[in-house]
Amino acid sequence: MAPPFSRLEYADRLNRTRTAMQANGCDVLVIGDPANVNWLTGYDAWSFYTPQIMVVGLDLEPTWIGREMDAGAASFTTYLPAEQVIPFPETYVQQTAVHPAQFMAEWMKSKGLNGKRIGYEADVYYLTPAAVEHLKGGLPDSQWTDCELLVNWQRLIKSPAEIVMLQQASEIAGLAMQTAYDGVRPGVRQNDLMADIIAAQIKGTPEFGGDQTALHPLVLAGEAASTAHPMWTDTTFQKDQTIAFELGGCRKRYNAGLARTVHLGEPPKTLITTAKAVGEGMDEVLNAMKSGAQCCDVHAAWQAVLDQYGLEKKSRIGYSIGLGYSPDWGEHTISFRPDDKTVLPENAVVHIILGMWMDGWGMELSETIHVRENDAICLTQFPRDVHVIDV
Amino acid sequence: MAPPFSRLEYADRLNRTRTAMQANGCDVLVIGDPANVNWLTGYDAWSFYTPQIMVVGLDLEPTWIGREMDAGAASFTTYLPAEQVIPFPETYVQQTAVHPAQFMAEWMKSKGLNGKRIGYEADVYYLTPAAVEHLKGGLPDSQWTDCELLVNWQRLIKSPAEIVMLQQASEIAGLAMQTAYDGVRPGVRQNDLMADIIAAQIKGTPEFGGDQTALHPLVLAGEAASTAHPMWTDTTFQKDQTIAFELGGCRKRYNAGLARTVHLGEPPKTLITTAKAVGEGMDEVLNAMKSGAQCCDVHAAWQAVLDQYGLEKKSRIGYSIGLGYSPDWGEHTISFRPDDKTVLPENAVVHIILGMWMDGWGMELSETIHVRENDAICLTQFPRDVHVIDV
Repeated sequence: MAPPFSRLEYADRLNRTRTAMQANGCDVLVIGDPANVNWLTGYDAWSFYTPQIMVVGLDLEPTWIGREMDAGAASFTTYLPAEQVIPFPETYVQQTAVHPAQFMAEWMKSKGLNGKRIGYEADVYYLTPAAVEHLKGGLPDSQWTDCELLVNWQRLIKSPAEIVMLQQASEIAGLAMQTAYDGVRPGVRQNDLMADIIAAQIKGTPEFGGDQTALHPLVLAGEAASTAHPMWTDTTFQKDQTIAFELGGCRKRYNAGLARTVHLGEPPKTLITTAKAVGEGMDEVLNAMKSGAQCCDVHAAWQAVLDQYGLEKKSRIGYSIGLGYSPDWGEHTISFRPDDKTVLPENAVVHIILGMWMDGWGMELSETIHVRENDAICLTQFPRDVHVIDV
Repeated sequence: MAPPFSRLEYADRLNRTRTAMQANGCDVLVIGDPANVNWLTGYDAWSFYTPQIMVVGLDLEPTWIGREMDAGAASFTTYLPAEQVIPFPETYVQQTAVHPAQFMAEWMKSKGLNGKRIGYEADVYYLTPAAVEHLKGGLPDSQWTDCELLVNWQRLIKSPAEIVMLQQASEIAGLAMQTAYDGVRPGVRQNDLMADIIAAQIKGTPEFGGDQTALHPLVLAGEAASTAHPMWTDTTFQKDQTIAFELGGCRKRYNAGLARTVHLGEPPKTLITTAKAVGEGMDEVLNAMKSGAQCCDVHAAWQAVLDQYGLEKKSRIGYSIGLGYSPDWGEHTISFRPDDKTVLPENAVVHIILGMWMDGWGMELSETIHVRENDAICLTQFPRDVHVIDV
């Protein structure tokens, strides 16, 4: 096993991160998001359920600090030499009197970091208030600044090798959706179909295997379709149900999303009209999307179609997607909505998800899209219309 | 769809939580852990990737505050009346100028909570430092106290209905492990086998379906077996590999763990000896475990066997298990290790995991165990010896 990208690529990512740190007035960055840790070094393990950080300094090489039993993962998923892998002893795990972040702070202090300007990620899932308090307490002479999204913003533009990962993830997403189409029928239990879909995601292709997507695969059927993120049940699909699948594919933690809608039986008129609007909206989004376009302009292209049909959608229609661990595959940087003026760069990859959660039913259509110099292309080739199954 | 437990059971859970709040000098509790939110109300959706809390007061009914598009999930997974479901507008999602916790704080203030003694969970995955800062800032006259694990400790003793959930999860865990045994062979890709295993977990039985386990299913093979939480790859299993599977089952977010070890070919002597020690250790653990026993005593029973064999294991050998969302199924309360003096109550359910991550190889054996008045029983019936496959 080896990291999925070249040493050169990781070096470039680190350079870009350090440049951003300098621009933000940071000497040191404490990274809690496991996706950012992975992006900078390749480190990959299900170890972030106990505290784990990466410390990067302008003058300090990226250093992983985590649980002793997980340190071994660094040796076969990263290029990090042993001195950049610092295990905290088991005696720190889930105790009341001590916290792993005290150990982390001690280590940082021993490296002369007390007094430095330290940035940290204040709004990520796996760096808790308790951990941050211990870190600050252990390095009291430092100036602590919220640098959330500093690394995430570096991740916005994908390298050619990352685009390949996302193409593979998107191919898997198509296989998963085909499995849904092949299996969804009245009388089939939701969990049985989801089992087949997830198996397809993980099997991937003969050339490359898949992983669990960071976002839990979702099926929106029946009453649950009026909300965005329901969990599947072991009830059965029913005739006359509109069923939205928000699936995707994952390759080495790179996620592509793909949502489609199926109807079992004769589709009602409201579905046909809404689907027509959503389909035209996706066309307009794709027409508007290219490097140099602003996120708000892409949203406006969608809104124009929606207005024409007299429909409403309050939520954003997409975001940057890529490397991610549970529970989210979004990068938390750009959002496609009226007030986001971000200019799209070439080689951004975004997930446009047109979710319409109506009164008692719902539908979704999504594409993972590669933003190119003069246009944008969908990474999965899969028919976009509502799939009607005659039952 | 309906919550999985009776109104009476949720009322009892709330009572126990309020009693603990009073004992801790809290008027109000802000809960960030989605497992605690679920335990108190049944609320179940993959919505916690944007900020979501539950506010419980001695004089305030449990109130969910989360993203607008997810509020609908409350209507079919909880008994909460509409006034206890407070959606924040989409304009708060992943913005730089505003944060959902500002909305939450405003709502709390409008309920007269500024000035109250407020407890919060300072070390859970989905309540971030930024969120807590906004909450504190919005209710500056309150006294804020870390009440992490207050609800988790209430979860330690399982109700009869929860035991049934865990029995079902454990039955699924056995099916998953059998799938591993049936499929693991030299030349099979790790991801292809894991796909089948996870499909078995989700299909469950004809009587009840399964869910994704909160802990990512793990396979430890080859070099990766020397570390505790590696991710699977698309390389193939090899002859002469020792392979540990840390699987489990999940039923309505209730998790049971199950780890076993397989060897492909003639098992080496070190494996045979280590497996013998681990097997005897598990026997002694089970003999020592019953209500009234201390966690440290159970650990001592294990340590005595280990000493006899001259083996070493630095990490704890188990923890309380049950309701959990990604990334962890442990309850973060009791740990089986030398310094944990917790007295085991009747109807605790624990996961004893004897993971030996050796130099270049590893093995695991685990059981999910129901602690009873005078003894303890394994919830999955599955042979414990290392499964040798003749290849």
